Amino acid sequence: METAALYHRPDSEMAYLRDHDHFQIRLRAKHADLAKVELLYGDPYGSKVNEKDEGSWDYQLVTMERRYQTTDHDYWVAEVSLPLRRLQYAFHVYGSDGQEYLYDDRRIYRYSANGIDRLACFRMPYLHEVDRIDPPAWVKETVWYQIFPERFANGDRTNDPAGTLKWGSVPPTATNFFGGDLQGIIDHLDYLQELGINGLYLCPIFTAHSNHKYDTIDYFNIDPAFGDKETFKELVDQAHARGMRVMLDAVFNHMGDFSMQWQDVQKYGEKSRFAKWFHIHDFPVGYDQTDNDEFAENLNYDVFANTPHMPKINTADPEARKYLLDVATYWIEQFDIDAWRLDVANEIDHEFWRDFYQQTHALKADFYVLGEVWHSAQEWVGHPEFDAVMNYAYTEPIISHFVAKEVTATEMEDQLQDQLMLYRDQTDQVMFNALDTHDTARLLTLCAGDQDLERQTLAMLFTQMGAPCLYYGTEVGMAGGPDPDCRQCMVWDKAQQDLTMFKFTQQLIQLRQKYQAVWSTGNLVFDREQAQQDVVSFTRATATQQIKCRFNTGTETIGYQLANDEQVLLDQNTTSDQQLQPNGFLITLTNSK
Amino acid sequence: METAALYHRPDSEMAYLRDHDHFQIRLRAKHADLAKVELLYGDPYGSKVNEKDEGSWDYQLVTMERRYQTTDHDYWVAEVSLPLRRLQYAFHVYGSDGQEYLYDDRRIYRYSANGIDRLACFRMPYLHEVDRIDPPAWVKETVWYQIFPERFANGDRTNDPAGTLKWGSVPPTATNFFGGDLQGIIDHLDYLQELGINGLYLCPIFTAHSNHKYDTIDYFNIDPAFGDKETFKELVDQAHARGMRVMLDAVFNHMGDFSMQWQDVQKYGEKSRFAKWFHIHDFPVGYDQTDNDEFAENLNYDVFANTPHMPKINTADPEARKYLLDVATYWIEQFDIDAWRLDVANEIDHEFWRDFYQQTHALKADFYVLGEVWHSAQEWVGHPEFDAVMNYAYTEPIISHFVAKEVTATEMEDQLQDQLMLYRDQTDQVMFNALDTHDTARLLTLCAGDQDLERQTLAMLFTQMGAPCLYYGTEVGMAGGPDPDCRQCMVWDKAQQDLTMFKFTQQLIQLRQKYQAVWSTGNLVFDREQAQQDVVSFTRATATQQIKCRFNTGTETIGYQLANDEQVLLDQNTTSDQQLQPNGFLITLTNSK
Repeated sequence: METAALYHRPDSEMAYLRDHDHFQIRLRAKHADLAKVELLYGDPYGSKVNEKDEGSWDYQLVTMERRYQTTDHDYWVAEVSLPLRRLQYAFHVYGSDGQEYLYDDRRIYRYSANGIDRLACFRMPYLHEVDRIDPPAWVKETVWYQIFPERFANGDRTNDPAGTLKWGSVPPTATNFFGGDLQGIIDHLDYLQELGINGLYLCPIFTAHSNHKYDTIDYFNIDPAFGDKETFKELVDQAHARGMRVMLDAVFNHMGDFSMQWQDVQKYGEKSRFAKWFHIHDFPVGYDQTDNDEFAENLNYDVFANTPHMPKINTADPEARKYLLDVATYWIEQFDIDAWRLDVANEIDHEFWRDFYQQTHALKADFYVLGEVWHSAQEWVGHPEFDAVMNYAYTEPIISHFVAKEVTATEMEDQLQDQLMLYRDQTDQVMFNALDTHDTARLLTLCAGDQDLERQTLAMLFTQMGAPCLYYGTEVGMAGGPDPDCRQCMVWDKAQQDLTMFKFTQQLIQLRQKYQAVWSTGNLVFDREQAQQDVVSFTRATATQQIKCRFNTGTETIGYQLANDEQVLLDQNTTSDQQLQPNGFLITLTNSK
Repeated sequence: METAALYHRPDSEMAYLRDHDHFQIRLRAKHADLAKVELLYGDPYGSKVNEKDEGSWDYQLVTMERRYQTTDHDYWVAEVSLPLRRLQYAFHVYGSDGQEYLYDDRRIYRYSANGIDRLACFRMPYLHEVDRIDPPAWVKETVWYQIFPERFANGDRTNDPAGTLKWGSVPPTATNFFGGDLQGIIDHLDYLQELGINGLYLCPIFTAHSNHKYDTIDYFNIDPAFGDKETFKELVDQAHARGMRVMLDAVFNHMGDFSMQWQDVQKYGEKSRFAKWFHIHDFPVGYDQTDNDEFAENLNYDVFANTPHMPKINTADPEARKYLLDVATYWIEQFDIDAWRLDVANEIDHEFWRDFYQQTHALKADFYVLGEVWHSAQEWVGHPEFDAVMNYAYTEPIISHFVAKEVTATEMEDQLQDQLMLYRDQTDQVMFNALDTHDTARLLTLCAGDQDLERQTLAMLFTQMGAPCLYYGTEVGMAGGPDPDCRQCMVWDKAQQDLTMFKFTQQLIQLRQKYQAVWSTGNLVFDREQAQQDVVSFTRATATQQIKCRFNTGTETIGYQLANDEQVLLDQNTTSDQQLQPNGFLITLTNSK
């Protein structure tokens, strides 16, 4: 047995309260190395009157299930319930080679019956509900729709900025404006309701210089070109009336250099009352300009990336921190928003996010905090900081396999399972899963215009754990390369809209919502043999329902067999003689359970 | 190569700011499986004007050092400095078998030159000083002395409780009293200063029913049998005047059932204003008594262990929480204590400890928080909750090998190194290392009275990272079995004191303090070959000094060779012909560096 590959970490995503009564324990081992794992567990204080000490341990035993298999690892999982909410445990590991080991909090050693009396158990001393990671339940049921406000719809000509161009008349650039605004969104809420989405994610709407508004000038005001607070209040109310949640986007990592605070620092230097709001090494602040406006050299203050126009905020400064936390609570208290999406959230300190979480949740218990983190994020979602992150680490492997064909089906499935095992189940269920955003090329463009491939990839997204997000216009067939081309004006002319795509996304959303429990909470079991033949095949199952998904991601037509009780829910590129063509998929319900 | 055994976890003890300017990165691998590891690292945003995106990554490279080797694992370590305080990194792993892999944030895959362009790096987005784990520096320089106040010295006869027995006249029981008090401690501060210790750890001194005072009745008052607040103030002041820190012991997990709060609950049931201060399932509170007074059945409220007399506090209740936090700050504000030792700290929620840490440190920046956790404790010391824990997980393997002879030298060294790798370096340096306490049998008794063995084991303790602690009376040769026998009255009669032992502990403390930097921060390298022959042999080295330690833990006399520049600092059971006898040890300074 490869004992060096065993890994367990107490009080982490490998040992946690999943819900009030279920404690989940995971063990990582080398793939195919173990025949069986037993979890030995019980109360640390014994249960017999005359056996007070820990030596005489009255343990229970449960056989762990192998939940996931990757090329390198198997992940073994068990759940236990503890009436006294106290737990100690260890693993009895049976190798495929017949060797047996005990794995406890201090060591891994050969199994012997009396070895159990010498266990130094892993401990979860008391299972505190207050420490349980508990994201809002509504997110599981949400299909998000991301809007880049300047490009979604112009509902109010009176607030168009100077030089506003005719809607969609020219390609978007880093600096042009088309007049999109909040009234435009309100005007199309019925359209979005018809589509079926129930979560609106708006890119920044606060006063800012640029068209993308990530360079905030005033966090307490709506950008005048987007409308005013009354309009925004109406937007939230109308969305809520339709059962839609509203998520705003905030940039707390840096400010725009046109902000009052940075302007003050530029003017008064060290004497500015905002001097400590930023990470400034010397005064006066300055830098050497290069040919690239977004790339400065010899900066004497910290910035986002290398742009001199976005000075980084010192979130450890009490005043700066209070200001930003006031922003966070203001839009909840006054406008009843449901979620914050936090830009460049990974570059801000953990202390700040702990306060942020506490203060937002004190106002609204089921508030959702979504951090922009492109990499693994255990420290943010394993503590009360973010409920979830932008799940690029999950969606990029899907694109790498389905679209770019850079990784095999097996490699993709390995990565997806590894990602799921980085987080608690309840976190995986509320992750924010998008295939494209304002920061990336659009999916149809990545697919080189192949609509079958686009639909196949969307279907893959919608069958995964985590809440899917559509980027505005995907549903009408919009294409676009990397920023700024992915930020084209929404196509409202019916003649220009791809109505087949609209119907497809509508069906996908309905499928998502009808079987929400399966997609959100159902087990995921990949068919590793099918992956060898370029078929991504898996089942999703709850205790009462099972759905099977097959995606042909290769270049050959593949046969499949439908079981008697299998009922097709949605499919593409299948034939009556049970052939699944390239870029085809098949989603079926089997009620065998 | 055994890729399944590779493990790295970003933003943890495997990737952390060690001091303001040094970021440490660790990688776990199978033992002897890797020939070399290179860390590829750099700024995530690139450094060239026209290369803004992450694809064109201008990385640096450092070869990692193999810091520790165990039977299962090797631990590879590197440190880097980042001028912009932003970091992304990945590992280039060279197998002993000639295979090469890249290990990044999402996968492990075969090395190829262009693989580096496709890395999904691990990220430490911004190295925030506010998030750095930064225990107080003075703890590294501290040798602790633990006092069980009821048994250390009776300095004031007027406060003796009714039925106080003559000092040391009979063995201690769970319920008898001998009159020890705070004045008794003050009276012997000169004695302790002569011994050389510079940290006092006092078991609970607040009003309580028992002789051990872990069943607190009033957290805001000194137990009348121990003295009053004036006496305590004098104790702290006099200790500080001698350069000694003072650590108090608090029980926040539960109260005594004689506390006003629990009495109120018993009287008024659900209507008690303290009803939510505890974890009560039904009213009125009750239980079935058994023959064992400390073991109740059918309790309808949560307790410590199974004793009905220690109801568990609901630290998530805002009022209970505030009360306990007020206790924590009161003794700092009013009496200037330096540290809290927290009883049963692992059974209290993390939220509470985060608040606790913030509030205590707001009053005293270099305050030390020590939690009683007997198992692995990453979640408590990896976040601002505890600076350190009672390091039983480190000292028990020492006793298992040196004293009980239950594990081999190699097994002990494996466990010690695994333990060190659970925590950041700065945490290991302030761990609280005791071989015996009021909760365990005394070391001399564990050694079956063998003083050579006791001294050898103490010498081992004092040469390790972490601050050592002497349990009162060890220095005069006191013995004692498990609680209550380990709580005998301190021997003050010179005729009864073991003065050889006093001199030895004094020397050991001097050795600790003279070479403090080596013991606290020096590298630790075990000689794995020597371990095979029952010799625990290792070097401790800083950049300027190296100390070598040899302990013969077997039954045979072993020869050793002193290098020319090796100077003996302390030894036992060595002979002039360079023979180290069983239970002997040799600590030498080599200035070869």
